[in-house]
Amino acid sequence: MTATADTTAGPQSRLQTRNGIDFAVADLGLAEFGRKEIRLAQHEMPGLMELRREYAEARPLHGARIAGSLHMTVQTAVLIETLVSLGAEVRWVSCNIFSTQDHAAAATVLGPNGTPEEPQGVPVFAWKGETLEEYWWCTEQLFKFTDEQGNIVGPNMILDDGGDATLLVHKGVEYEKTGVVPTVEDEDLTVSDEYRIILDTLRRSLGEDPQRWTTVASDIRGVTEETTTGVHRLYQLAEQGLLLFPAINVNDSVTKSKFDNTYGIRHSLIDGLNRATDVLIGGKVALVCGFGDVGKGSAAALAGQGARVIVSEVDPICALQALLQGYQVARLEDVVDQADIIVTTTGNKDIVTVEAMARMKHQAIVANVGHFDNEIDVAGLGRYPGIRRLNIKPQVDEWVFPDGHSIILLSEGRLMNLGNATGHPSFVMSNSFSNQVIAQVELFTKYEEYNKDVYRLPKHLDEKVAKIHVLALGGELTKLTKDQAEYIGVDVEGPFKPEHYRY
Amino acid sequence: MTATADTTAGPQSRLQTRNGIDFAVADLGLAEFGRKEIRLAQHEMPGLMELRREYAEARPLHGARIAGSLHMTVQTAVLIETLVSLGAEVRWVSCNIFSTQDHAAAATVLGPNGTPEEPQGVPVFAWKGETLEEYWWCTEQLFKFTDEQGNIVGPNMILDDGGDATLLVHKGVEYEKTGVVPTVEDEDLTVSDEYRIILDTLRRSLGEDPQRWTTVASDIRGVTEETTTGVHRLYQLAEQGLLLFPAINVNDSVTKSKFDNTYGIRHSLIDGLNRATDVLIGGKVALVCGFGDVGKGSAAALAGQGARVIVSEVDPICALQALLQGYQVARLEDVVDQADIIVTTTGNKDIVTVEAMARMKHQAIVANVGHFDNEIDVAGLGRYPGIRRLNIKPQVDEWVFPDGHSIILLSEGRLMNLGNATGHPSFVMSNSFSNQVIAQVELFTKYEEYNKDVYRLPKHLDEKVAKIHVLALGGELTKLTKDQAEYIGVDVEGPFKPEHYRY
Amino acid sequence: MTATADTTAGPQSRLQTRNGIDFAVADLGLAEFGRKEIRLAQHEMPGLMELRREYAEARPLHGARIAGSLHMTVQTAVLIETLVSLGAEVRWVSCNIFSTQDHAAAATVLGPNGTPEEPQGVPVFAWKGETLEEYWWCTEQLFKFTDEQGNIVGPNMILDDGGDATLLVHKGVEYEKTGVVPTVEDEDLTVSDEYRIILDTLRRSLGEDPQRWTTVASDIRGVTEETTTGVHRLYQLAEQGLLLFPAINVNDSVTKSKFDNTYGIRHSLIDGLNRATDVLIGGKVALVCGFGDVGKGSAAALAGQGARVIVSEVDPICALQALLQGYQVARLEDVVDQADIIVTTTGNKDIVTVEAMARMKHQAIVANVGHFDNEIDVAGLGRYPGIRRLNIKPQVDEWVFPDGHSIILLSEGRLMNLGNATGHPSFVMSNSFSNQVIAQVELFTKYEEYNKDVYRLPKHLDEKVAKIHVLALGGELTKLTKDQAEYIGVDVEGPFKPEHYRY
Amino acid sequence: MTATADTTAGPQSRLQTRNGIDFAVADLGLAEFGRKEIRLAQHEMPGLMELRREYAEARPLHGARIAGSLHMTVQTAVLIETLVSLGAEVRWVSCNIFSTQDHAAAATVLGPNGTPEEPQGVPVFAWKGETLEEYWWCTEQLFKFTDEQGNIVGPNMILDDGGDATLLVHKGVEYEKTGVVPTVEDEDLTVSDEYRIILDTLRRSLGEDPQRWTTVASDIRGVTEETTTGVHRLYQLAEQGLLLFPAINVNDSVTKSKFDNTYGIRHSLIDGLNRATDVLIGGKVALVCGFGDVGKGSAAALAGQGARVIVSEVDPICALQALLQGYQVARLEDVVDQADIIVTTTGNKDIVTVEAMARMKHQAIVANVGHFDNEIDVAGLGRYPGIRRLNIKPQVDEWVFPDGHSIILLSEGRLMNLGNATGHPSFVMSNSFSNQVIAQVELFTKYEEYNKDVYRLPKHLDEKVAKIHVLALGGELTKLTKDQAEYIGVDVEGPFKPEHYRY
Repeated sequence: MTATADTTAGPQSRLQTRNGIDFAVADLGLAEFGRKEIRLAQHEMPGLMELRREYAEARPLHGARIAGSLHMTVQTAVLIETLVSLGAEVRWVSCNIFSTQDHAAAATVLGPNGTPEEPQGVPVFAWKGETLEEYWWCTEQLFKFTDEQGNIVGPNMILDDGGDATLLVHKGVEYEKTGVVPTVEDEDLTVSDEYRIILDTLRRSLGEDPQRWTTVASDIRGVTEETTTGVHRLYQLAEQGLLLFPAINVNDSVTKSKFDNTYGIRHSLIDGLNRATDVLIGGKVALVCGFGDVGKGSAAALAGQGARVIVSEVDPICALQALLQGYQVARLEDVVDQADIIVTTTGNKDIVTVEAMARMKHQAIVANVGHFDNEIDVAGLGRYPGIRRLNIKPQVDEWVFPDGHSIILLSEGRLMNLGNATGHPSFVMSNSFSNQVIAQVELFTKYEEYNKDVYRLPKHLDEKVAKIHVLALGGELTKLTKDQAEYIGVDVEGPFKPEHYRY
Repeated sequence: MTATADTTAGPQSRLQTRNGIDFAVADLGLAEFGRKEIRLAQHEMPGLMELRREYAEARPLHGARIAGSLHMTVQTAVLIETLVSLGAEVRWVSCNIFSTQDHAAAATVLGPNGTPEEPQGVPVFAWKGETLEEYWWCTEQLFKFTDEQGNIVGPNMILDDGGDATLLVHKGVEYEKTGVVPTVEDEDLTVSDEYRIILDTLRRSLGEDPQRWTTVASDIRGVTEETTTGVHRLYQLAEQGLLLFPAINVNDSVTKSKFDNTYGIRHSLIDGLNRATDVLIGGKVALVCGFGDVGKGSAAALAGQGARVIVSEVDPICALQALLQGYQVARLEDVVDQADIIVTTTGNKDIVTVEAMARMKHQAIVANVGHFDNEIDVAGLGRYPGIRRLNIKPQVDEWVFPDGHSIILLSEGRLMNLGNATGHPSFVMSNSFSNQVIAQVELFTKYEEYNKDVYRLPKHLDEKVAKIHVLALGGELTKLTKDQAEYIGVDVEGPFKPEHYRY
Repeated sequence: MTATADTTAGPQSRLQTRNGIDFAVADLGLAEFGRKEIRLAQHEMPGLMELRREYAEARPLHGARIAGSLHMTVQTAVLIETLVSLGAEVRWVSCNIFSTQDHAAAATVLGPNGTPEEPQGVPVFAWKGETLEEYWWCTEQLFKFTDEQGNIVGPNMILDDGGDATLLVHKGVEYEKTGVVPTVEDEDLTVSDEYRIILDTLRRSLGEDPQRWTTVASDIRGVTEETTTGVHRLYQLAEQGLLLFPAINVNDSVTKSKFDNTYGIRHSLIDGLNRATDVLIGGKVALVCGFGDVGKGSAAALAGQGARVIVSEVDPICALQALLQGYQVARLEDVVDQADIIVTTTGNKDIVTVEAMARMKHQAIVANVGHFDNEIDVAGLGRYPGIRRLNIKPQVDEWVFPDGHSIILLSEGRLMNLGNATGHPSFVMSNSFSNQVIAQVELFTKYEEYNKDVYRLPKHLDEKVAKIHVLALGGELTKLTKDQAEYIGVDVEGPFKPEHYRY
Repeated sequence: MTATADTTAGPQSRLQTRNGIDFAVADLGLAEFGRKEIRLAQHEMPGLMELRREYAEARPLHGARIAGSLHMTVQTAVLIETLVSLGAEVRWVSCNIFSTQDHAAAATVLGPNGTPEEPQGVPVFAWKGETLEEYWWCTEQLFKFTDEQGNIVGPNMILDDGGDATLLVHKGVEYEKTGVVPTVEDEDLTVSDEYRIILDTLRRSLGEDPQRWTTVASDIRGVTEETTTGVHRLYQLAEQGLLLFPAINVNDSVTKSKFDNTYGIRHSLIDGLNRATDVLIGGKVALVCGFGDVGKGSAAALAGQGARVIVSEVDPICALQALLQGYQVARLEDVVDQADIIVTTTGNKDIVTVEAMARMKHQAIVANVGHFDNEIDVAGLGRYPGIRRLNIKPQVDEWVFPDGHSIILLSEGRLMNLGNATGHPSFVMSNSFSNQVIAQVELFTKYEEYNKDVYRLPKHLDEKVAKIHVLALGGELTKLTKDQAEYIGVDVEGPFKPEHYRY
């Protein structure tokens, strides 16, 4: 037993080092179950497995030190394994305090052939239910690779989901340059609790090494970003001329946004409703707020189970699509008293107000698969005079209004497909994670061709990811003849569509 | 604390008596959670709640002593409450050794307002995972009501699912008349283990009271039977002139067979697949064996999630329905190597042989929602040379063939919608249980009008059950004018269709 | 040119005789187009073609003289050819004054290899747009076969649709026995115009031969009846002990009622709407009145084109099915002002009243696929004060209410899938017509085994018809092992289900 | 009668002038029927009608002289009326020699209140079945407006579909500048027959007025273009710096490309199949070549009728969409012998080769809804040794191969939704035509803000068009609060999505 648990107070008490691997996870004993699930998931992630085969010899990520911040789940474990098999060194954290699957984290630390005594995997710093202090401490650990001489060095690549790893570097550099990390008193603006913790983290780290973040940043060849929110931040940085390294926007690959959002939700919305409530969906009236990619998947799933779906929409183009697919389009306030199930998919806030909930049918189910928990006015619910909250089981609460009617709120208004079910299935994640791997290879090997700007993956790589998954599902692709390709003005190998094509 | 636990060996050690209620359940401490789920389920069982309202004053089951043998779940708890609210005394057991939900059993013993010290509910004898000895001991307890003088008396009604309570009475009477309960030596035929236990039970009970079962039988006004198997037994008894009291076949009410089987499975198949495997159903090839009511629901559910469904069928009429609904119809042996998900729905045996499983795709999922576990050759699988079984989690096993490919078998081949999910949702059960309540009232109050034969509920009662559930879903029914009713030769209040109408 | 046109006034002026074949059709010149369509239809009627092959040698209808009264369409032409190829002599009329396809009638007279000068086909007496006098004169011609000696003899089999041929025989025998055909003065009851014509027809025929109808009836081995209405009459006759020969009810074969009504309408409703109006169905609100077999097909068709379907229903069981399939269920009066398309499927009358039409949206489309034109109050529409009728094109009328809004009425309220499109497609008719052929063979060859009662075809023949069509669609049927068949208590060759099975 | 028919040979013999309106149509007698259909279509084109209301006072096209080249159908007639009601003077031709609906052309000339003697409508030069000479003569007439002084002047706006009107101007200017219209001998390249006719047309017109086309071009403020092909030409001209005036690409508005192609085809494919063949679609195997917008609509339509759909695709992203929606994806050559219906939707050529047709099932139906008739190798079919063509009815041919099997080819391989049915329904066209009107207003009133380049309509106008149609279908749009709009960074009135959003 070579483990050495840090005994100082705070998150670092979680830190262990065994067999040269440092990590902080809930329980290595969960690794065996994690290993089983990872093995099964590999088969459902043909994109990642194909990339392993394709790059088995070339190992294009040899020399890469990747700092990864993305939900530490079974699927992510397969992603991490893939990055390693392409030659990379990897350190990992979750990008959300609740989203770690502890068995996946444990198995990732252990590695396929490791033992609890001699783990052979990857340093992971993540457990389900971190505090915000713990979360940012974990994120900080991403930047502590060790070189062959045993010196601490930074990563040369970031793989980000939501942009927190990237944020830390950029803020670190910013304050390093201004010479001081602001304290709350320094700033006029109201600082959120979380931002205060980020500042504390940076202050401490710059206390240790005043050039820490410029050093880190100078090594980084680029970042590949998974989601809308993170991409939004990157575009803002680029516009302001503050982006420190090139970025690839993985989110807007077709095989990401049009598959994750629609087909992933089609699967996991139903799954979450069933696990949470066991209520028959057939015959019920379901109100789906929003008919974007997520709303389209939600409506399809509910209709596929025999519900009658009503859609509310702001955007008339999406509303017209809903109508032409046979859905009723109405305003929430006009139909909310008829709905048995209310699903928010908008990415906006205040979609389901407490006034709306006060008017709902008894035991109406309220669920969010959009973005943040402010799609539903959970805070307002708690403040409603005379309301009572009855917890039925984890992530399922009955809120009883003074008039006696109640609503069933799932996952406290947070993403219920993660909270009440297990999120997107492996096959869906295989698409977006394949884009991630390809983007990492692209930036790591060709970073000199990129400016400090935000790029999308070229369409032929999007098509490559799709092709692997088509073949995995048994689909057979037709091949253009040279003559046909010329006729429509494309290459026989693609890309097959203009950039603005909508799919 | 007035509980008195019987300390003799055997099942009776489970027996407790508190506040005049005898019972044997896993843990009364689970009652609170059970109570919550029952409360939520009430809203989803409008048929039962409407019958409570309708009969609130009349209490037509006043004087009824009902012996109930039917899966002791949350939904059944709502059924039991309903029978009680209509005036009945009730005793209850599960009709399957695994199907009891312990929290539902506990809450039923406690009753809505009882406490663990002073339960006010119903005697339940059921826990998850009974042995067969325990099961038949429990069933025997059904027949021990107490009259006002404190004497043990039998029930005057049976509510049965599968016919085990009815079997015990009929076999008891048979052996009482022959004067001896056979032992294995008495009989030429091979006696199954379970039947041996039934004989032991009867021998013991007749040892206590040699006229026990004729006494019991003479009090019974009738039985209402829930399922195909039990109904089959009843018709056999009736044909042989051995049926001891009238029976109502609830199974073949339209609101039972065409709703349970199709819409219940449409819900719970998906649910079971998701909880067991988290595998994306969309894009997969699903082979559904059988296109009867259950197969129709299965295919709809899988297609609704974006799977490509292939149907195998024996009956050309059902096969033609499958084709005209857009499904491919093929023989299992011709397509089993293309399928990702294989679902049996036939009620027959040897549908998926071990040879078929040997030819399946790697990690193909094999699931049964038909009837018994012999639809899939689980026994053959265990005997396959060189095969290994890896348990992934409860009710999910990976069986690895010597060539390295594996299949994922759910619930060991037993009904996976019960084993991997929670069975039919409340709303679906509200339909069949409403038929049960109506049938109990009918037979209890009008038993003199019935012969010792098997009856179906008249169509107007089937329509009544449907009507309650239509209104609960917000549907509005059209009313025939007198003129219109005459024109098509029906009554304005129905029934609206001839007996042979197929829906 | 050997044709001899009867020059006397009345229908007989239509009568021609060429090459020993007597007939009365619109124009033999249409035969070539009819021939093409018949040839194409043969391929879509695999049931009939398979029966031709199966019985090619046995020719079990040799000696049969079949009087057929059924819409003289292309599909019926293939039926007639089939009966002939099985050995029968055939005479034919349409069972509806509008339903004859003149090119089909012409081609049937000509036969596959005939010429206008030397037709080699079947005597047909039918044209589009007969008067009622003509209609009954045609029907009378059914009974005038010629034997080898050139004597007029009656048929020995009837193939009926709606029962008019059967009616004529029964009424003829009735009045022959009473010795007088009543005139209007003889009877108290109000006699409809059509019945007056029937009486005239019988009076004339009995004038020619006073034993005509008892002679005819005595030869007839049985009748096979296609539809609900005809079957209803037969059951009435049987109950009154008046049925003169055995009857087979083809209508209630599963391969008739569950296929024709549902899948036939799913096809032809859409077809009729499109040909009549060219209005986009997607996005529209469609109200389907009735959710029986026809309503189920209608709703599926409209939803399949992207309409939002609302169902109105009287029968709560059917209403519950509609709800569980995701349709809204409402009363016509509550939603009629929201609907763009209103379809009646009930077989009842006064479903869409003129008051309802007065409240409809501008240019709402009103269409009937139920039964008679009284489902929609067309008569009331004509009497509405100030209403104007604008004919748009044949079978499409715009009725403009005084307030300026209009409705589009299709086919004057009669069956619009026939009036605005071409009725059920060949493949659907192949199912019911195969039942007809099988029923003819059964009754003709085994008539001695039947009493003067109404029979349904045994289930194994229903399954046989289904099997042929399954194979024609490329479906492959699974075969039960002997062991499996015993396990579920059926024969390996079927029938596979109990009589009361609902499919 | 003031009509003066030009008696010279050639197309000009069609030319008439009555009541100051010159025109060339098939038969003014068809105007009454055309008028009825236009009136009904108005209600189905709410976008156009709303624009009439909105601009009733402003009449923003006052002063516009629009040369329109777009299929002269009933829907186009409503478009023309709309342009006129906004103040424009209009001259019109069809952009396809077969696509004119003669009754629509006649009614457009007549105008709503005109008479054959005194038409009050618009000069139309179009009839069904023009020769190519006639076609280009008609197109030339577009450019002959008359000013108040009676002088011939050119248009100041073009509304184009396919770009032929724009082509004539550009080629005219080109040759005017080079000083000579080339003859075949002048050019090395092979000149198509059609191009030869264009050159003849230009030569004749420049013979009449050597500055004709520079004069015309100098007046034109811009062109709005309807389709892919025309847009493609415009982008080429713009890239080469040859574009003579600004252009708006209407084709790539979402409310055009994602609605026309998908929902229009979903309607009209089924319609064409039914009118052409009456074959039951349910139960059949349908191969859809291509899964772009048109393929998606085709597959939905066929599946909605109960066909089993197989998709062939080149583009793996579209193929993956097909799989995840439950369709089989295969290569044509692997499944063509299983398909009953083959539909091409690709816009490419040689999709269905004669070799493929030689291997098809007997009576397989081959239909194109893609683009040109070269999607199917019709020419190769005609050259196949021993093949016979049997015309069944207009636009329906049976081609019989020497081995006896035949295929049914619709519309000779041209767009069968136009050839066998009536094309896109009015409601769909209302979307694209509303974009046209808006684009005309935009360019006519703000042409000075535009360069000689190709523009897409701004998203808020796309959303405006959608909104009108949402409301027309009874949909109710939700309104963002100011707070919500800020939260997602949009204006409360939209546009609601970034440019790259895919819908």
